[in-house]
Amino acid sequence: MKIKRSERLVDMTIFFLENPKKITPLNFFSEKYQAAKSSISEDLTIITSIFEENKMGALITYAGARGGVEYQPQIEEKELEKELEKIKNEINHSKRLLPGGYIYTSDLLSNPEWLKRIGKIIASKYIDQEIDTIMTISTKGVPIAQAVAYQLNVPFVIVRKSSKVTEGSTVSINYQPRSSSQEVEKMALSKNSLKAGSKLLLIDDFLRGGGTMAGLERMAEEFESEVVDAVVFLEHDSQASIEDYRSLLKIQSIDPETLKIKVELGNFLTN
Amino acid sequence: MKIKRSERLVDMTIFFLENPKKITPLNFFSEKYQAAKSSISEDLTIITSIFEENKMGALITYAGARGGVEYQPQIEEKELEKELEKIKNEINHSKRLLPGGYIYTSDLLSNPEWLKRIGKIIASKYIDQEIDTIMTISTKGVPIAQAVAYQLNVPFVIVRKSSKVTEGSTVSINYQPRSSSQEVEKMALSKNSLKAGSKLLLIDDFLRGGGTMAGLERMAEEFESEVVDAVVFLEHDSQASIEDYRSLLKIQSIDPETLKIKVELGNFLTN
Repeated sequence: MKIKRSERLVDMTIFFLENPKKITPLNFFSEKYQAAKSSISEDLTIITSIFEENKMGALITYAGARGGVEYQPQIEEKELEKELEKIKNEINHSKRLLPGGYIYTSDLLSNPEWLKRIGKIIASKYIDQEIDTIMTISTKGVPIAQAVAYQLNVPFVIVRKSSKVTEGSTVSINYQPRSSSQEVEKMALSKNSLKAGSKLLLIDDFLRGGGTMAGLERMAEEFESEVVDAVVFLEHDSQASIEDYRSLLKIQSIDPETLKIKVELGNFLTN
Repeated sequence: MKIKRSERLVDMTIFFLENPKKITPLNFFSEKYQAAKSSISEDLTIITSIFEENKMGALITYAGARGGVEYQPQIEEKELEKELEKIKNEINHSKRLLPGGYIYTSDLLSNPEWLKRIGKIIASKYIDQEIDTIMTISTKGVPIAQAVAYQLNVPFVIVRKSSKVTEGSTVSINYQPRSSSQEVEKMALSKNSLKAGSKLLLIDDFLRGGGTMAGLERMAEEFESEVVDAVVFLEHDSQASIEDYRSLLKIQSIDPETLKIKVELGNFLTN
């Protein structure tokens, strides 16, 4: 289609937003729009300036035979803190303490606006790293994993807490969900859902003792895959049994009277 | 910020894609860009022409005091069939039969590209209906629900198959997951996750006897909420105990020798 620059800009903006982390040759655009490569380059300059204005990442151009242009959705570091503060304030302002010391976060983790924000924050840290799969555990880790997967444009796999996995042969391991008790539970992942040699980003909603995350690490080992990093949305205490994870937010104090919790920023930015 | 039309178009395109189903007054744009309303109107015409070119919906303008412009992401009906055919072909071309008659679909339901496609297909049918919450059941319904929620810009709630719900007080009901057996299971939803009077779209990945979907309908009743419609990704047989649901795809035949299944389009478009 031969269209005007103004229309081309709209079309290309749509393309990049729908296809993050995908290298597209400049030829693709010059052929699609029957436009000179120099015009396309100018378009890319305009688009990237607005992406940067919106602090939502940039178009990266790669030279060479396998070159092209890629949209890397990435919130810059200064903005990341502001975005995390928004979530922090949302959590701090209402009653969230549940019986058993659980924290109510479902209002955030089932809302597209918050999930998109969380997905963008987490993806920002790994946008230029080689991650090919996100691994999470059911149920509440799934929406976060999907939100990040949308940004990094990679698939996610869901480890189940139940042995009733209806996906054929599985690998299952035992883990201790709570460090305070000797109770052992089972987690399972279907065999054909993950290739050996995968580079994984582990994601969960909540980390208390670190037992679940340690289980996911062992699951990754079972699949001969590498854990690039591990991220949790909310961290409860610092006695986790694994050291190399990041948390977006961390519980600072809990007030059983008002049922409010106070969270501070976790080690996501600093570590 | 005062910027050129070309830049404004990029910025507005980003805005609409990030904020589907949200009415924004024209004033917002004319103030943001320090541009005349007539210029903004021209921009909207350009953007909507490209959205329509891409068959991804349109900008709808509402007049009046509470008026404004809204992006309604909607695949047109002719295109919907093509999109469904793509999923059909993907399912038909590989071995998917698992022991117990289960069907392997996790490769699609954990891949951002397929999930976005499925989300857009389902949302297209309900884009101009009043739906304020999506209800699904863990685990495999969740990614579909989230994909649709992203398009309709509404939250989703996750009914759990386990009573181990760590979200405070719950409503739980019994249901028969398989019509072939008298086995009864429990599903639960936390009380504060859904307001009375909600208008729900029910979503699940798989429908065989319809027991799970019937359970979700009863759960909706418990929360005094209205079920606008119920959609499943894949339907196994037509002896479902509820009539008013839609399926994207339907199993036509199963070949236990090759482990292949043959699916056809479900009643999503026709019903």
